[in-house]
Amino acid sequence: MIILVLNCGSSSLKYQLLDMRSAEDYTLMKKGLVERIGDVVPDHAAGIKMVLDALVSPEEGVIDSLERIDAVGHRVAHGGEFFDCSVRVTPEVMDKIERCCELAPLHNPANLMGIKAIEQLMPGEPQVAVFDTSFHQTMPDYAYMYAIPYRFYEQYRLRRYGFHGTSHKYVAEKACKFVGLNLHKSRIITCHLGNGSSVTAIKDGESVDTSMGFTPVEGVVMGTRCGNLDVGAVTFIQEKENLDYKQVNSLLNKKSGLLGISGVSGDNRDIEAAAATGNERAQLAKKMLSYSIKKYVGAYAAALGGVDLIVFTGGIGENAWPVREEVCTGLEFLGVDFDTEANKVRGKDVLLSRPGSKVKVVAVTTNEELVIATDTMNIVSNN
Amino acid sequence: MIILVLNCGSSSLKYQLLDMRSAEDYTLMKKGLVERIGDVVPDHAAGIKMVLDALVSPEEGVIDSLERIDAVGHRVAHGGEFFDCSVRVTPEVMDKIERCCELAPLHNPANLMGIKAIEQLMPGEPQVAVFDTSFHQTMPDYAYMYAIPYRFYEQYRLRRYGFHGTSHKYVAEKACKFVGLNLHKSRIITCHLGNGSSVTAIKDGESVDTSMGFTPVEGVVMGTRCGNLDVGAVTFIQEKENLDYKQVNSLLNKKSGLLGISGVSGDNRDIEAAAATGNERAQLAKKMLSYSIKKYVGAYAAALGGVDLIVFTGGIGENAWPVREEVCTGLEFLGVDFDTEANKVRGKDVLLSRPGSKVKVVAVTTNEELVIATDTMNIVSNN
Repeated sequence: MIILVLNCGSSSLKYQLLDMRSAEDYTLMKKGLVERIGDVVPDHAAGIKMVLDALVSPEEGVIDSLERIDAVGHRVAHGGEFFDCSVRVTPEVMDKIERCCELAPLHNPANLMGIKAIEQLMPGEPQVAVFDTSFHQTMPDYAYMYAIPYRFYEQYRLRRYGFHGTSHKYVAEKACKFVGLNLHKSRIITCHLGNGSSVTAIKDGESVDTSMGFTPVEGVVMGTRCGNLDVGAVTFIQEKENLDYKQVNSLLNKKSGLLGISGVSGDNRDIEAAAATGNERAQLAKKMLSYSIKKYVGAYAAALGGVDLIVFTGGIGENAWPVREEVCTGLEFLGVDFDTEANKVRGKDVLLSRPGSKVKVVAVTTNEELVIATDTMNIVSNN
Repeated sequence: MIILVLNCGSSSLKYQLLDMRSAEDYTLMKKGLVERIGDVVPDHAAGIKMVLDALVSPEEGVIDSLERIDAVGHRVAHGGEFFDCSVRVTPEVMDKIERCCELAPLHNPANLMGIKAIEQLMPGEPQVAVFDTSFHQTMPDYAYMYAIPYRFYEQYRLRRYGFHGTSHKYVAEKACKFVGLNLHKSRIITCHLGNGSSVTAIKDGESVDTSMGFTPVEGVVMGTRCGNLDVGAVTFIQEKENLDYKQVNSLLNKKSGLLGISGVSGDNRDIEAAAATGNERAQLAKKMLSYSIKKYVGAYAAALGGVDLIVFTGGIGENAWPVREEVCTGLEFLGVDFDTEANKVRGKDVLLSRPGSKVKVVAVTTNEELVIATDTMNIVSNN
């Protein structure tokens, strides 16, 4: 079954064409990126038209006709409380995605435009929506509610949603297979660390807490996002610098995190390089990143009543072994026997704990597009 | 040595007169409260005059002359980065307290007015300032810095300070004596849970992290303060409800926490009563409170590399045994063997872990006035 996976952002779109025989057996036929949508490329429909043309082009194409594509799977940023799993796109589903635009004003409108463009360009094509939030819908209320007046939940559905759900779900399953644990009887902490980062507590296969919240700015220190911050600091900054809510939001999402502390870059590779040459603020940023992750590992161990498996993934989690080492140093009390030598690899699935370690630690590569393709295949096949 | 302890709030002041023979051997001679300063009582000087008159009054007084008072100790909310311990008040100290008013705009001005009133009413009297923040000045930079642009630290000293320092320090020492641990070789987590609450990680006698931050709104769920909240939620609320920074700050400090979630009360006793009669939002508030504390215990265990002693204190910590039970349930992985029967007491110093528990758990009563009196005695005696 040939599946086109689309990830439409506000000004770009990423795609992969996969030939899926099963979740484990597939071929990546083509992948690519269209940038500057709204500028050089007029809109998402035009961007998707470019993708479809490329797929069937005599020169660089990989299929002879669009009819070879059995279904299209979309990454959708926010499913609110409507969706706790991936679903086939219907008018009702589109209406609900629309109603979540308020919760993800940059991403959901782009995702919807992608769905509408496919409707227009490939009429009748089965489409599936895979939500970044749905895996976390199993969180208990005391984990997803904030301690603010209850009416904000009733009126605006203001609560913790969490993101990176497809990745957390995928790497938890993959890591369990890798170390021979039963996902449905394990306490797992997954650290998806990339430009955006989140840590999730998974009990018996279900997300029970996650560090990103109502928005992706909460949680651990990120590339340019502040992570956790005293809300009194937010209003202090607004007062002192005469900023409105949009300006302070932009500051905390785009100018903070590793970039804000170091003044060097929001990319952890640049931070590590600068730290190695003695840049003190880069060294501080590096320590803050690891420390913020370490505290979540401890907090979620407490939430889970202990931990069986810690998983690192994402650009930083898969590659930045110094971050993994700093996070895991001092976790012997949890039962972690960390293998600092085995840890010194990048971009591979690797066991990071020594034989006999009570808590297994692994790094595994994530593949969100594969989750989207697999969900799409399963939903379309069963319809 | 007779010490007057003053705790000047924005519209009230509390006092205690103590006859100190040593930190362990003292007599509380008189205590009291003056309310409605700025309203019925014109100002802090007038309020302190009332206190001094009461102390020497023939009817209700306890001393025959103000000259019997050897020194006055003041609770001062914020010492910024200037003070890492209690100090004798000098013009230079007053200037630094003044410079911290920006960091504690409600409290430091009142504390300063108290100091000036004593200067005026008891000229030449030795005065000591005991700071709520100074115990936490030992935090490492990666624990006290926020991941926002570095210039906010340089320009405004925006960082984590922490509060309740006198209480955390006092109960850590008291609890160590109680269970026979060496404070200077122990990893301790102190939970000061009252109307305002904070949790502190203490290593070898020094604070290494604490849950309150730049302001007292950060951290665990409190009576009317929200504790940790996605900063994206702050700006979302501002947008949707058209609130400026002052209004949203007031909402998150005064209408949130247990009160906001339950709609019942910000007092945990009311929450427990309502939860017992089946009020679902009170039950939710109760769970959120315990869960937020439990996550800090786990996070700080990770920060400390394990934990030897967990201490509960403050109005909730000393009395609300259901909160202590919920926090400690499921912490067996840390080495906690919690004694649910021993736990069912209120307002007493009590061991809450079973014999042989690797991690000791205790509830002890706090006494911030005693810390202030002791520090005052020691500083004045050594001058």
